[in-house]
Amino acid sequence: MLELYHAGRTTCSRKARLCLAEKGLDYVSHYMNLGAFENHTPEYLKLNPNGVVPTLVHDGTVIIESTFINEYIDEVFPEPPLRPADPALTAKMRVWGKIADAYGLAAGRVPPRAETEKANHDSRPAAGAVEEGIARVPPPENAAEDRPSTGDGFSEADFENSYATMDMIYAKTEAALADGPWLVGEQYTLADINMLPFITQFGAYRPELLDGKSHPRTKEWHERCMARPAVIKTYTPSDEAPDFPPQSKPAA
Amino acid sequence: MLELYHAGRTTCSRKARLCLAEKGLDYVSHYMNLGAFENHTPEYLKLNPNGVVPTLVHDGTVIIESTFINEYIDEVFPEPPLRPADPALTAKMRVWGKIADAYGLAAGRVPPRAETEKANHDSRPAAGAVEEGIARVPPPENAAEDRPSTGDGFSEADFENSYATMDMIYAKTEAALADGPWLVGEQYTLADINMLPFITQFGAYRPELLDGKSHPRTKEWHERCMARPAVIKTYTPSDEAPDFPPQSKPAA
Repeated sequence: MLELYHAGRTTCSRKARLCLAEKGLDYVSHYMNLGAFENHTPEYLKLNPNGVVPTLVHDGTVIIESTFINEYIDEVFPEPPLRPADPALTAKMRVWGKIADAYGLAAGRVPPRAETEKANHDSRPAAGAVEEGIARVPPPENAAEDRPSTGDGFSEADFENSYATMDMIYAKTEAALADGPWLVGEQYTLADINMLPFITQFGAYRPELLDGKSHPRTKEWHERCMARPAVIKTYTPSDEAPDFPPQSKPAA
Repeated sequence: MLELYHAGRTTCSRKARLCLAEKGLDYVSHYMNLGAFENHTPEYLKLNPNGVVPTLVHDGTVIIESTFINEYIDEVFPEPPLRPADPALTAKMRVWGKIADAYGLAAGRVPPRAETEKANHDSRPAAGAVEEGIARVPPPENAAEDRPSTGDGFSEADFENSYATMDMIYAKTEAALADGPWLVGEQYTLADINMLPFITQFGAYRPELLDGKSHPRTKEWHERCMARPAVIKTYTPSDEAPDFPPQSKPAA
């Protein structure tokens, strides 16, 4: 049995959900309301000491970190393959995973100014609650990743860095897509899955990135991704990934 | 043919060298003097646009990022295996790779106060040269990783964060080693290889971490690692990894 603890439409949860959907795997969905710090309960911290989502539990075995969850899923459920047969292309695929984790997540953490973001995150806790939450699951490992986008506490420099990172990431996707329809060539892989939520998120914040003028290949790639049945399923609001935060945790 | 562009005894170069040595693979060594910014030449940036070391070239195919270089080596040259047969343990192994990359590298970047560090890095360029180098290969992707430890430009808070991260990493290794002689259990894997240079580096900065009192299991693990022939070979000063920076680049 597969169980996924996740926060619906947030980026790293989407990564794992995209992978599971692409494989056609059924799983028990445990929706975590990050705004209510459900990811900080003692029960959850036993599964994921970092207090972040997602977490996969497969027949009792716990897997953390969305990028490694996705590699695990691909190894244990190899059809359809989501990694290239060529190990050199797999190495390139993994570089995209690192770009998502090391740069995408940080850039998307700065609160968006666009309305579109409202649908992507839980209801915002008050700033004081955020500080309490960070104190509960201490830095350096979690504070940054765990800080919800309250809209407070970010400087102009934070926005500039975030926007510069978004630009860097879009420049990289645009360059890579000169070589094929997908990020590492001819095959849809975990590189595409791991980057898609960030490209979507940044484009929602800054529509000029996805208007087809500045990054035409990335826009076409995004459309190709969005046409995939597994992506449609993952992105469509549902009980598993509500359009707006539920008032209470839905039954699994 | 395998070729490795590296900086000898620096952490990420050691990671790749440790993996190659464990596999018993021969390779052409290209020593890069980071203090002279040999990693910023146009020729090198064609191989590794991030301007960092190491880079592996295998029969003309370029692989970057030390953690993914090591997974590549293990996939293409599977004997002796350096990943667990169990995919769940492989996921744990990859979490260690992320800890090394996302936390270890940042913590070790703050200049050490101990003399021991002198042997681990190239001769220091002047502060102005550092700024010029950072401008040459722009942020956000490289600036931090590429900044040599000049001893300038770090605040007291930088030191505190660095030391807190070192403590966090040592606490994690100590906890993990309750379950077996190696970081993911019974088998020496890329988790051990990817963490070893950081545990060594932090212990050189702060001998109290490796004195056997605060983290006895980590000290024993470090000794087990250091007794391995591949580790001895990698750590022993040589033309490939000089004890002190060479005045000119050695012949490959």
